[in-house]
Amino acid sequence: MITRMSTLFLRTLREDPADAEVPSHRLLVRAGYVRRVAPGIYSWLPLGLRVLRNIEQAVRAEMDAIGGQEIHLPALLPKEPYETTGRWTEYGPNMFRLKDRKKADYLLGPTHEELFAQTVKGEYNSYRDFPVILYQVQTKYRDEERPRAGILRGREFVMKDSYSFDLDDEQLGSSYRLHRDAYTRLFDRLGLRYTVVAATSGAMGGSASEEFLAECPTGEDTFVRSSESDYAANVEAVTTPPAPELPVEGRPQAEVHHTPDTPTIESLVEFLNDAESDRKFTAADTLKNVLVKTRQPGAEEWTLLAVGVPGDREVDMKRLEAALEPAEVALVDDADFAANPFLVKGYVGPKALQDNGVRYLVDPRVSNGSAWVTGADKSDHHVVDLVCGRDFTPDGTIEAAEVREGDPSPDGHGVLQAARGIEIGHIFQLGRKYTDAISLDALGQDGQPKRVTMGSYGVGVSRLVAAIAEQHHDELGLVWPRAVAPADVHVVIAGKDDALGTEAERISAELDDAGVRVVLDDRNVSPGVKFADAELVGVPTILVVGKGLSRGVVELKDRASGERTEVAADEVVDQLVELVRS
Amino acid sequence: MITRMSTLFLRTLREDPADAEVPSHRLLVRAGYVRRVAPGIYSWLPLGLRVLRNIEQAVRAEMDAIGGQEIHLPALLPKEPYETTGRWTEYGPNMFRLKDRKKADYLLGPTHEELFAQTVKGEYNSYRDFPVILYQVQTKYRDEERPRAGILRGREFVMKDSYSFDLDDEQLGSSYRLHRDAYTRLFDRLGLRYTVVAATSGAMGGSASEEFLAECPTGEDTFVRSSESDYAANVEAVTTPPAPELPVEGRPQAEVHHTPDTPTIESLVEFLNDAESDRKFTAADTLKNVLVKTRQPGAEEWTLLAVGVPGDREVDMKRLEAALEPAEVALVDDADFAANPFLVKGYVGPKALQDNGVRYLVDPRVSNGSAWVTGADKSDHHVVDLVCGRDFTPDGTIEAAEVREGDPSPDGHGVLQAARGIEIGHIFQLGRKYTDAISLDALGQDGQPKRVTMGSYGVGVSRLVAAIAEQHHDELGLVWPRAVAPADVHVVIAGKDDALGTEAERISAELDDAGVRVVLDDRNVSPGVKFADAELVGVPTILVVGKGLSRGVVELKDRASGERTEVAADEVVDQLVELVRS
Repeated sequence: MITRMSTLFLRTLREDPADAEVPSHRLLVRAGYVRRVAPGIYSWLPLGLRVLRNIEQAVRAEMDAIGGQEIHLPALLPKEPYETTGRWTEYGPNMFRLKDRKKADYLLGPTHEELFAQTVKGEYNSYRDFPVILYQVQTKYRDEERPRAGILRGREFVMKDSYSFDLDDEQLGSSYRLHRDAYTRLFDRLGLRYTVVAATSGAMGGSASEEFLAECPTGEDTFVRSSESDYAANVEAVTTPPAPELPVEGRPQAEVHHTPDTPTIESLVEFLNDAESDRKFTAADTLKNVLVKTRQPGAEEWTLLAVGVPGDREVDMKRLEAALEPAEVALVDDADFAANPFLVKGYVGPKALQDNGVRYLVDPRVSNGSAWVTGADKSDHHVVDLVCGRDFTPDGTIEAAEVREGDPSPDGHGVLQAARGIEIGHIFQLGRKYTDAISLDALGQDGQPKRVTMGSYGVGVSRLVAAIAEQHHDELGLVWPRAVAPADVHVVIAGKDDALGTEAERISAELDDAGVRVVLDDRNVSPGVKFADAELVGVPTILVVGKGLSRGVVELKDRASGERTEVAADEVVDQLVELVRS
Repeated sequence: MITRMSTLFLRTLREDPADAEVPSHRLLVRAGYVRRVAPGIYSWLPLGLRVLRNIEQAVRAEMDAIGGQEIHLPALLPKEPYETTGRWTEYGPNMFRLKDRKKADYLLGPTHEELFAQTVKGEYNSYRDFPVILYQVQTKYRDEERPRAGILRGREFVMKDSYSFDLDDEQLGSSYRLHRDAYTRLFDRLGLRYTVVAATSGAMGGSASEEFLAECPTGEDTFVRSSESDYAANVEAVTTPPAPELPVEGRPQAEVHHTPDTPTIESLVEFLNDAESDRKFTAADTLKNVLVKTRQPGAEEWTLLAVGVPGDREVDMKRLEAALEPAEVALVDDADFAANPFLVKGYVGPKALQDNGVRYLVDPRVSNGSAWVTGADKSDHHVVDLVCGRDFTPDGTIEAAEVREGDPSPDGHGVLQAARGIEIGHIFQLGRKYTDAISLDALGQDGQPKRVTMGSYGVGVSRLVAAIAEQHHDELGLVWPRAVAPADVHVVIAGKDDALGTEAERISAELDDAGVRVVLDDRNVSPGVKFADAELVGVPTILVVGKGLSRGVVELKDRASGERTEVAADEVVDQLVELVRS
């Protein structure tokens, strides 16, 4: 069916929407693909819905190809399964919750691990039934604190979520690789530039986890990659190579110094270098002890936690939160200092922490035998040459220090470089968190029950519309890859002469018959308006039926390259059919 | 892609689910099409999802054919548009409501009139833009008081809702007829037996309205149809032909009689017939005044209302509610009688009602000049020969009396017969309720704004799965019409001989290549189990590759007729391709 601009429910906008910060948001609104209904909640108009559906179909094709079976679970879900796994609480304010008329608790599903596990338990019980991969393409809900960038981070959005159920770790590894390969094929097919990065598994639980990030300067996720290898990781997932252990013998004794007026690391380093002219101190020789408090999901009480990082680095709260998930993290306040008088603000040292039972985790650079300048638990005093493993023993290490460009790559090759991306896919080896919660077992060949292990794999389907638009646009508008474009050819009738309309109708009808998806601009507006709208809408091929027709030619314009070619009007259909099928 | 029973996520059940009252619920659960997650909330397993998608595609094809344009609005909606039209209140407890993290009010959309009107207002503003028909296929939510019968009346369900926007009543009539015809083609295509009945418009507002009811003894909706014409109506929509006016002159004067021990209509009629031997009274000569109270949406106060119906009929609360919508209706209780001492329980008459300002509506059979025996507002007393229009003047008429089989058809032809059905479609001429609320105008050719008029049209997509199952099943299982079936051919390997499997695989592969949708039962279970599952699952054609193969034949069984035919194995593919394409 030919899509006629004269009747298409579409009004393009000349002005950028006031709330649009990123190109995809700006252009998808201006070109009439989406409209805002509420914060993070959008309507899909006809062209937007077509792109969304094209992506859904591509996702289904790749999922079916790895043996995934499509099912469809509800979005409105009872509380109980999420209570069993603790996520009713863990999800915090990100989950939409509601009560029905009988006051029973429900939620709008943000992700469906519990329900898929329950569904499999309802049908399957023998080792012969496994492995199985199930998926759905579904509207999901998250009450984001800061919905932004149109459909890039919405509160109602479409996801493909799939779940693998396997009998052992090896099978799980294989289901994971199937998904990794399927996602690679999918994102290639959709024309995306992306990086697969190591990721943390967050509130999902589980072990191995990678994210697919569409590279994009407006992306929300910062990631790093090596200058010399294919190492790439989400900043939260970067691991710090531990510093080598050093011999303790022969190190000078720790000494407490009076260090007046040294409230900052800079002032401390300056003071030390002035005081001890034979040694050169840098911020990296100091150990900064940052106090936070943590609270386990559902708990009432906060617990103090001290994090020790080299003084030349800040604590990265996102990395710290990822390291401590699912616990909540907050900075300590004056009331906490008042309640714990052994904490001397600005001069907190390992001794007071350990004497008072405060858990103390340090950066991996704080290795056994390394010596530090740090707080002496007394105002205006620091201790020099405090040696880890001799003078203090941390409770463990933590990845909380900021990651910097130029840091050595964890794989030992090259240094880290920073980049930004949009999370478009995420794959997890969950393990048994969810199957343990509901005792999902398969009866083994030996007659013994065997706990099933699970994987969880997501694609942000509606977000992909925006991610593709971020990578495929120019100053004139959207530039869709053909695989997702709302049409193949945008036919413009460029003039009022009836002959132009007649020929454009003939060409459009023949293309439509041949299965080429056509938008025909048959509106009674100027050619200039039509050209501008064609560029804005971003169909890959623009066909102009204009004054050249008197010479028997029409013009083809490739939206992406801008290249224009004249083609005989009676050959253009064959040429386009070939182009679209190739 | 061949669907293999050996890996298909399907476990059929031998037992009926405990909560299943109707055949569709029983069979859709037993055959593994749907699974219950919470009251009125279901998951779709692979076969169920296929049937659902087939119906969705049929709906889209018919909507596209009448020029409908598909868009997709959110399900999570802000309160404001529904507050503007009053439906935030009117919907009462049937609407799921929730608050986001900022305490803003949201709802889960039960229907989208407000949002579609708003969407059109956002894009269109000239008479040239109209008419337009927009639709969506979407998950919708209603917090039903009594979810029942599986997916037949769910709380999360899929609907196709479309909305027409027209410049005048004539255009609206035409959009309405387009939908009526599209629905007729759709339900025919889906193999349904249905009746189009006149309906009331309920909380939607508006004027003309018809329902499409799938005829079915387990249906929730009672409707009536004429024995002699094509008149059919929802019971709520049946209009009572008004009784002819009678001359008042010469009628006897009203007389109050002492009528002891006549608390019921029967006892009253008996008493009168005993007392006045020259006249014969029936219950139809008495006028029963039923007291209820009503409350407008959002109002605090209840208002008394008296409904007068002939004594041989009960008040039908559903008809009364439909007549009074959107007001709430409740029966009066002892406290109400105590607060209004002029109401003499069992003896309420028109006089006390009118003297005390109680609104009094009567059945259309209570015409001017008709004479009645009714309450005399005094215990143990009735008044005889109280003439309407002479002795009392009702405030109007109301359709509240029960409709009975044998009542004259409102169109004057034949009498009414009762039947039951499932509401599968509903079409409304809404008029300007929603466009008035948001001032949706089109600038006319004359430069003057013209208020747009609206229609609203729904198809219960997920309910159709159940409605079709109600009409298409037998004692062995489901019997899908091919247009919606999850596959075309169910191939059964009936035996352990390798040759059977090889031939079944060959046939299945060739069918699949030819575009025929195949389920192949390649499980390692007995032929008996396979046959039973094939009947239960309900694919239209069953192909058995069994012992006949030694003679070069396979068996085809038509699931609906049960007819079996032997076909040469090397001809069966061609024969099936022809069958499926025809």
